[in-house]
Amino acid sequence: MIAVGIYGASGYTGQELMRLLLRHQQVEIAAITSRQYKGVSLAKVFPGFQGSTDLTFSDYSPEEMATLCDIVFLALPHSVSMKVAPIFHEAGIKIIDLSADFRIRDVKTYEKWYGFHTSPDLLNKAVYGIPELYRAAIAESSFIANPGCYPTSVILGLAPLLKGKYIDHASIIVDSKSGVSGAGREPQAGTLFCEVAEGFNAYNVGRHRHTPEIEQELTILAGESVTISFTPHLLPVSRGILSTIYAKLEKGADTAELLGIYGDFYRNEKFVSLCNEGALPNISSVRGTNFCRIGLVVDERTNRVVIISAIDNLVKGGAGQAIQNMNVLCGFAEDAGLNMLPLFP
Amino acid sequence: MIAVGIYGASGYTGQELMRLLLRHQQVEIAAITSRQYKGVSLAKVFPGFQGSTDLTFSDYSPEEMATLCDIVFLALPHSVSMKVAPIFHEAGIKIIDLSADFRIRDVKTYEKWYGFHTSPDLLNKAVYGIPELYRAAIAESSFIANPGCYPTSVILGLAPLLKGKYIDHASIIVDSKSGVSGAGREPQAGTLFCEVAEGFNAYNVGRHRHTPEIEQELTILAGESVTISFTPHLLPVSRGILSTIYAKLEKGADTAELLGIYGDFYRNEKFVSLCNEGALPNISSVRGTNFCRIGLVVDERTNRVVIISAIDNLVKGGAGQAIQNMNVLCGFAEDAGLNMLPLFP
Amino acid sequence: MIAVGIYGASGYTGQELMRLLLRHQQVEIAAITSRQYKGVSLAKVFPGFQGSTDLTFSDYSPEEMATLCDIVFLALPHSVSMKVAPIFHEAGIKIIDLSADFRIRDVKTYEKWYGFHTSPDLLNKAVYGIPELYRAAIAESSFIANPGCYPTSVILGLAPLLKGKYIDHASIIVDSKSGVSGAGREPQAGTLFCEVAEGFNAYNVGRHRHTPEIEQELTILAGESVTISFTPHLLPVSRGILSTIYAKLEKGADTAELLGIYGDFYRNEKFVSLCNEGALPNISSVRGTNFCRIGLVVDERTNRVVIISAIDNLVKGGAGQAIQNMNVLCGFAEDAGLNMLPLFP
Amino acid sequence: MIAVGIYGASGYTGQELMRLLLRHQQVEIAAITSRQYKGVSLAKVFPGFQGSTDLTFSDYSPEEMATLCDIVFLALPHSVSMKVAPIFHEAGIKIIDLSADFRIRDVKTYEKWYGFHTSPDLLNKAVYGIPELYRAAIAESSFIANPGCYPTSVILGLAPLLKGKYIDHASIIVDSKSGVSGAGREPQAGTLFCEVAEGFNAYNVGRHRHTPEIEQELTILAGESVTISFTPHLLPVSRGILSTIYAKLEKGADTAELLGIYGDFYRNEKFVSLCNEGALPNISSVRGTNFCRIGLVVDERTNRVVIISAIDNLVKGGAGQAIQNMNVLCGFAEDAGLNMLPLFP
Repeated sequence: MIAVGIYGASGYTGQELMRLLLRHQQVEIAAITSRQYKGVSLAKVFPGFQGSTDLTFSDYSPEEMATLCDIVFLALPHSVSMKVAPIFHEAGIKIIDLSADFRIRDVKTYEKWYGFHTSPDLLNKAVYGIPELYRAAIAESSFIANPGCYPTSVILGLAPLLKGKYIDHASIIVDSKSGVSGAGREPQAGTLFCEVAEGFNAYNVGRHRHTPEIEQELTILAGESVTISFTPHLLPVSRGILSTIYAKLEKGADTAELLGIYGDFYRNEKFVSLCNEGALPNISSVRGTNFCRIGLVVDERTNRVVIISAIDNLVKGGAGQAIQNMNVLCGFAEDAGLNMLPLFP
Repeated sequence: MIAVGIYGASGYTGQELMRLLLRHQQVEIAAITSRQYKGVSLAKVFPGFQGSTDLTFSDYSPEEMATLCDIVFLALPHSVSMKVAPIFHEAGIKIIDLSADFRIRDVKTYEKWYGFHTSPDLLNKAVYGIPELYRAAIAESSFIANPGCYPTSVILGLAPLLKGKYIDHASIIVDSKSGVSGAGREPQAGTLFCEVAEGFNAYNVGRHRHTPEIEQELTILAGESVTISFTPHLLPVSRGILSTIYAKLEKGADTAELLGIYGDFYRNEKFVSLCNEGALPNISSVRGTNFCRIGLVVDERTNRVVIISAIDNLVKGGAGQAIQNMNVLCGFAEDAGLNMLPLFP
Repeated sequence: MIAVGIYGASGYTGQELMRLLLRHQQVEIAAITSRQYKGVSLAKVFPGFQGSTDLTFSDYSPEEMATLCDIVFLALPHSVSMKVAPIFHEAGIKIIDLSADFRIRDVKTYEKWYGFHTSPDLLNKAVYGIPELYRAAIAESSFIANPGCYPTSVILGLAPLLKGKYIDHASIIVDSKSGVSGAGREPQAGTLFCEVAEGFNAYNVGRHRHTPEIEQELTILAGESVTISFTPHLLPVSRGILSTIYAKLEKGADTAELLGIYGDFYRNEKFVSLCNEGALPNISSVRGTNFCRIGLVVDERTNRVVIISAIDNLVKGGAGQAIQNMNVLCGFAEDAGLNMLPLFP
Repeated sequence: MIAVGIYGASGYTGQELMRLLLRHQQVEIAAITSRQYKGVSLAKVFPGFQGSTDLTFSDYSPEEMATLCDIVFLALPHSVSMKVAPIFHEAGIKIIDLSADFRIRDVKTYEKWYGFHTSPDLLNKAVYGIPELYRAAIAESSFIANPGCYPTSVILGLAPLLKGKYIDHASIIVDSKSGVSGAGREPQAGTLFCEVAEGFNAYNVGRHRHTPEIEQELTILAGESVTISFTPHLLPVSRGILSTIYAKLEKGADTAELLGIYGDFYRNEKFVSLCNEGALPNISSVRGTNFCRIGLVVDERTNRVVIISAIDNLVKGGAGQAIQNMNVLCGFAEDAGLNMLPLFP
């Protein structure tokens, strides 16, 4: 039994961490913080927890929090996380950071897309937390940079083909669609029900901050510098990301062959699930789960492969992957606390 | 470990039984049937199960099914269930029937609202499966009539006040709103996305078939014949029932006092959760769970109490309560396999 | 051609006024104001107007605005409207006030539910703007208090029966459900997409501020003091109110007879539409229109009538009724600019 | 005043034609047909029409219908339309066919994607009905093949760049997302509310039947044979298509320059609306209207242009464009009856 803390726990990611950690058998939640809700019970802010926990938000400083827990989840905005992480690191607490602050290895790239970084020295301590790609490093690390939601769907969707050099990496186009919870719980006009329902739009075309994170990981996989077109869209659903990914095939291959390559690549992965030929993923069949479901089609008319990758942005794209990383890092079964089936309908 | 079968498993209720039973530690699913999908894998019909089970639909006869399982869930339409249940009963298989066929104790009432009953002799074998009211009888029974979704929300919402004679039972008005999954998975124009989204309407006003079931149980609780006004509505959500219940107070009491009565009545109930004074339930905070959440307000201007009762129609209003009944009947922990927190958002 | 102004035009009500007035043949929009969006084009705030108008928000004072228009719509929050209205009134500008400030004739009642009133002297100038009930007075007035959304649905739903003394007014229970646009466009956690979608809840039970407005008008219709139970709920749709209204019948009557009474009462009304026996209204069949659609059922088992009344809260419950009032007041055809068919699906 | 008929009027397209034609000043609806609803009033099938029309479905043969109207809209499935159209054509009735049957000029291509064509001789009579591209031909024609919904959004989105040879046509990728009404009103499991809500998926990747239609028109615009990747997705909304289109730039150009080219190309077009630089279209700002709204971004990192094109699939992608074609063909103002502002929220 380990003691965990959640620093900045009043958003959707914090809430999702709680949903999952409260049912994790090897974990005890030692403390949760929120400046806004200091002294308020979790069940008051998220009524679904009523009757299931007595947890109350505190406003512990990082130093205080460090005395209470073995591992801390940072569910903070970028640029805030980088101020808190060094204190936990100093105190020898294991860190799983859900912000973007330690995902980009190159500080110049970080600063170009996000702004000034106050802890560049910590960047090389952090391991990028996709267990399917970095399991061994995660197991030995004490500082995980938990991936972004869009990047998780894209990197898992492209890894087998890039690694195997099946595609022309200069041809990659990523058209992603995300549910509204990705925009957080802070009140803003753009995410009001009336603005989103029965609507759909692209945003930040060509300049979304997840672009350099995706490119960093695709570059590592390809062994060459990769630049992509990335277009995010806002879906009128609460949860889910579906990325439709296009690339030119370098080697002739049909759908079945490519699915075979994915099958090999993800053979022992509990959380990557492949669609059979002819089937394609729907975000509703991963809702509430830690699965990434992937389907693909080779379009012989254009010699392109179209890969569809679906996750729940709050689970595999956030809190679930964070717990998967914790499991790896702590030597727990990788699916401990993550064994849910999707909620449908 | 007991062997369970699900007879008629291809609808939303069948699917929800599977979601819950596949994660129940003391249960093994021996067989699932569907005439329509004979030979098709569960994961093909409900892709969310892919990678989590190899179950395939069969079209076993009740006689065949009876050789495979200790307990059977009947997820069949009314009037079909009554033809199958006797065979299982004869074979000594424990039955949890999710249809309406054995809920109404008086065969004349059944026939007035539903049509001819072919097994009236079995009616007195069946125990009405609300564990909060009939736990002892359920524990000793081998035939459970699992309650309707609307009735569950209404009966749990009114039980403490009727039992304690706090309200004028002639004044009861029930205004209920249900998500679309209550209408089943059979394709029909009325439940198409375009017909339901951004819509809302009442239906079957004064003549919904759940009325006699509600009245039967309220009558037992009140010790006098109760007749109610019941108006169901169709909500543009997939899951959830919220019933708003009005009654005249017979005894002066304020909100806090009445909440105290509910607290006493449901003191040891794991699945009834009361809102604090000033708070009211939202279907989104019971989504995916077996909770019934109840809040109330005394309106002193009119001397009425307004009770709000919320459940997930597929869980506490269907598959979850069926499993709760199985747990009681089999001597398992009552919340075995039902320990989920709500999926929000 | 008259010149109209909209004071406080950047919310959903203001936007809806614009949608309708821009297509009204006898009207020219002279000015629209918004402190927040001063100098910003309407099309920037509401992109749907792009290409259809060059209107830009100003921050004119009421005095300046009064020099520009013949008639002004006040789309302001309550307590703000009462400060602005006297200035326009003084200047001889016709006023249609969409706030609650001049709807309650008794200042003590207003102050009990809303707070201090700074212009009580103006209360008796204002005519309550339901044309179906007060057409003659509206035609001669220059100051209209445009009704609330919930009250419009309830008052039109009950008028024929109260007027004809068919029901026991002490037995009236109103269970109303409203779309989210009724909560306005100000960012707040409670109306975020993720909080509302797949949810449903009651709020302000027994203490919603529309209660005294409803009771005032029902009292006038009944000729006796009426007190009601009123429970509003939040529907996960953008537009629409559906009120389900219960009352004990004082005189024996069946559904057809009561529908006949409604037919007589609303014989010449363009915007009240009655459902045939056996049919009931859905908010989706009034979406975007100025119709109030009413259906009813007599429940002989309980001797109650159940009336269902549906409107679009932004049209008949707001901007549309305001324009209907303007048409009456200006002597235009009552349906000028309001001749839309519903947008479905 | 011309007499119009709608042949096959009980689907969403037929209903939308009615919504628009009932308010068109120069048109009288002479007859509407539906085999399924023969003798049933339009208002019974679509309650939103109650009080606004007495139209009733007939099951006139094409020969009978031809005696009643000057122009007929065929709102039939493909392969049915081709059997009816020749009869109307023979009778000298002007035809606007909303099916796919006469959109593909090359019969072999049609038969490869759709199946056997029974009236290939009529193919060269039909004019492809995008007025922005074929206005003159439409004005002189008496047989319009009204475009598909996806093709309308894509062709209008690409026309200026293909015509001006700004892009490499071999690089075109079209990622489209459509609301559910595009799938029609025929009950089927896949379009039930519970299956669609909170879901999102791609379908028919690389093999959607709108592909040859899009390619035919892009080929004409480019002057060279164009082959595209086309991926449709199902959005959980009732109305709206948004196409995100990617292409490599052949000539260096920034966003402003390309917007300038679109501005020139569509200078006099009432129904094409361009977003200013920095803005992008949302389907919610064209809802219920005949607008096609287009925005674009040049991504200098990849030398690609990303074009976003949004329409209401039932209006500009169906009934609205059909009426626009009728207006051109009849010499009416092109926006007669199409002058609506979007319904938002």
